[in-house]
Amino acid sequence: MSHSVSPLAPRKYAKMPAIDGVRIATAEAGIKYRNRTDLLVMVFDKGTEVAGVFTRSRCPSAPVDLCRANLPGGKAGVLVVNSGNANAFTGQKGRATTSATAKAAAAAAGCGEGEVFLASTGVIGEPLDPAKFTGLLGEMAKSAEPARWDEAGKAIMTTDTYPKYATQKALLGDVEVTINGIAKGAGMIAPDMATMLSFVATDAPIAAAALQEMLSKGTAKTFNAVTVDSDTSTSDTLLIFATGKAKGAPPITDPRDPRLAPFRRALNKVLKNLALQVVRDGEGARKQIEVTVTGAKSSKSARKIALSIANSPLVKTAVAGEDANWGRVVMAVGKAGEPADRDRLSIWFGDNRLAHKGERDSAYSEERTSAYMKRDEIAIRADLGIGGGKATVWTCDLTKEYVAINGDYRS
Amino acid sequence: MSHSVSPLAPRKYAKMPAIDGVRIATAEAGIKYRNRTDLLVMVFDKGTEVAGVFTRSRCPSAPVDLCRANLPGGKAGVLVVNSGNANAFTGQKGRATTSATAKAAAAAAGCGEGEVFLASTGVIGEPLDPAKFTGLLGEMAKSAEPARWDEAGKAIMTTDTYPKYATQKALLGDVEVTINGIAKGAGMIAPDMATMLSFVATDAPIAAAALQEMLSKGTAKTFNAVTVDSDTSTSDTLLIFATGKAKGAPPITDPRDPRLAPFRRALNKVLKNLALQVVRDGEGARKQIEVTVTGAKSSKSARKIALSIANSPLVKTAVAGEDANWGRVVMAVGKAGEPADRDRLSIWFGDNRLAHKGERDSAYSEERTSAYMKRDEIAIRADLGIGGGKATVWTCDLTKEYVAINGDYRS
Repeated sequence: MSHSVSPLAPRKYAKMPAIDGVRIATAEAGIKYRNRTDLLVMVFDKGTEVAGVFTRSRCPSAPVDLCRANLPGGKAGVLVVNSGNANAFTGQKGRATTSATAKAAAAAAGCGEGEVFLASTGVIGEPLDPAKFTGLLGEMAKSAEPARWDEAGKAIMTTDTYPKYATQKALLGDVEVTINGIAKGAGMIAPDMATMLSFVATDAPIAAAALQEMLSKGTAKTFNAVTVDSDTSTSDTLLIFATGKAKGAPPITDPRDPRLAPFRRALNKVLKNLALQVVRDGEGARKQIEVTVTGAKSSKSARKIALSIANSPLVKTAVAGEDANWGRVVMAVGKAGEPADRDRLSIWFGDNRLAHKGERDSAYSEERTSAYMKRDEIAIRADLGIGGGKATVWTCDLTKEYVAINGDYRS
Repeated sequence: MSHSVSPLAPRKYAKMPAIDGVRIATAEAGIKYRNRTDLLVMVFDKGTEVAGVFTRSRCPSAPVDLCRANLPGGKAGVLVVNSGNANAFTGQKGRATTSATAKAAAAAAGCGEGEVFLASTGVIGEPLDPAKFTGLLGEMAKSAEPARWDEAGKAIMTTDTYPKYATQKALLGDVEVTINGIAKGAGMIAPDMATMLSFVATDAPIAAAALQEMLSKGTAKTFNAVTVDSDTSTSDTLLIFATGKAKGAPPITDPRDPRLAPFRRALNKVLKNLALQVVRDGEGARKQIEVTVTGAKSSKSARKIALSIANSPLVKTAVAGEDANWGRVVMAVGKAGEPADRDRLSIWFGDNRLAHKGERDSAYSEERTSAYMKRDEIAIRADLGIGGGKATVWTCDLTKEYVAINGDYRS
């Protein structure tokens, strides 16, 4: 399957520095794809702390189960990710695969089995034979090198049209630390979270509990605020690893430690950057859509309405057609089931107010709005006029290419 | 814009008998369309009882507001329906229009203004000038005739590719009564959405309260169990009128009256028949999909899971691509947020069991299932294996034509 690169791809990729304490190797295991890497190993130095968030699917994959089981330990020695097969809905066989992989990975990295983290992405329901890659792990762990983040980003892709990288520096005490992140997305992307895998690493000495608090909070306004098609994967996994190798940085254990503020901001930038890259590579995406709801009864209500707009096929096809069809935004507000007063509702596309206080804005210019709709990035705002709740979510348009990609996937 | 007739259209339309006490007229008011009828008037004999159900949108159209206000009176004298303009999100102007229309319609039919029912479908946000049609109502009411159900079905169409009719006979006591229904569904010619309008009439002497109970219950498993694209219109309206003209039939006031049983069955058949016709004419539809969930914790839970499957773009595109991609059904079960146990889940496409107890069915035949997926009507079943709850909903596939119809509007 080959798809041309999304027109919303970044002009150039972030230059990813090495993270002290993280070594990377990739390989072509031939799990499903040919002539491309599909296996990633990240080996972490002893003492690396870990935190994670996962899909809310009631039918999670076997690797998600394993990560959830190991997370309370708070320590990571190795991460193994394969693309091409999700090892989801594979029953007892799936558990046997994660168990065999964990054993081989622990041996390869010289860590405990409870310090192994796994992620798989690809077809659901196909048994994943661990023999395809467990034999490779020893050599990969041995040859792993720090400066291979570019390769890591590529090895986890499925229908992504470009690899996704982000990096930030931040001060922790007086010491500059680094945060690197990679992600994959494409389809089955909805909050909570997405067919989305993302792995973040830092050399900062931050304990698992503090990492977890920052990651959970940061996810709410980033990865959990993007949707491609409202569909939630069985396999969504976002993990953060902190090696603590940044020399002279103060060890942090309390998430309320004020010295964490710059790190938290930088981490949130990495998460948001990656989340938007996922949206901009949504299957068939030609435009990014930012949906902001203001004036709602509460922030929770605003978020629900914003997602109703962002997930509406009629809104998304209108944007694909460069049609400022604000009537569909009214529809999506109405269907959300949240408190709303039709006669106080106002709607903007960019700076163009199309509807005001329950009817078409008399000053609305079709010409100016049509010109706006030709842009790559469309901002839709709905003000409900009944409270102070607000929320922003991001999505992409719904094009014929989405249908083509997803109608022809297995065939 | 012209669309060819859906391949799922009925081979022939139902022959619609007259209903004693109902007279019908249609006209070309030129509200938006040219060279086709866009105005329907149904005049009811004195004493006609009425019940209705409406959109749950928080931003309902002005005609929906008016119907809701008049419904508690329980009596209907006249119904006026226009296509081409929804009179939705039209603010004070919208209320002025419904008010002027109600006045003119009451005068034309010789009934009280509280006995007028209105429905509008078409563009949202455009003011609807009542002067376009109020002048026609007097002549239409005068010339209205009983045997015009065919014309009624056509006058309410928007982008429907075929008119939708259903009729049933039932015994009430010893007397045969008739139930006629028409509907319109998903379409767009203007910026619009899948507004659903349906009007049912019977000569049975059934009081408003009993009608309401039967309609509300009947809707749950018919019109409220179909989805084209998960988007809810501002204008959805389903009304039932009972003229009581069937000679010798016993008047019924109590919804629990056992003599209602055959009528209720016949009414449910009419509602289901119309609801399925709406799905089969869904925008771009090439296949009908029936989704049944069994073994859920409760019926409510089963329904939520069934709708999660039916509204999943990934499931719908897979069916469009004739791909038995049951992994996406697992995903949709998982994302519904309802109680589920991955390891007890089984999935069928038709009679083909693809997954059983949490993994791919070892007896699954790709060849047989692929042949099945070429059919016009696809049945998907998921058994959760944890309880007795079940539900069935209907939808259609998601094709490139859906995107074209909804994305190419203004371009």
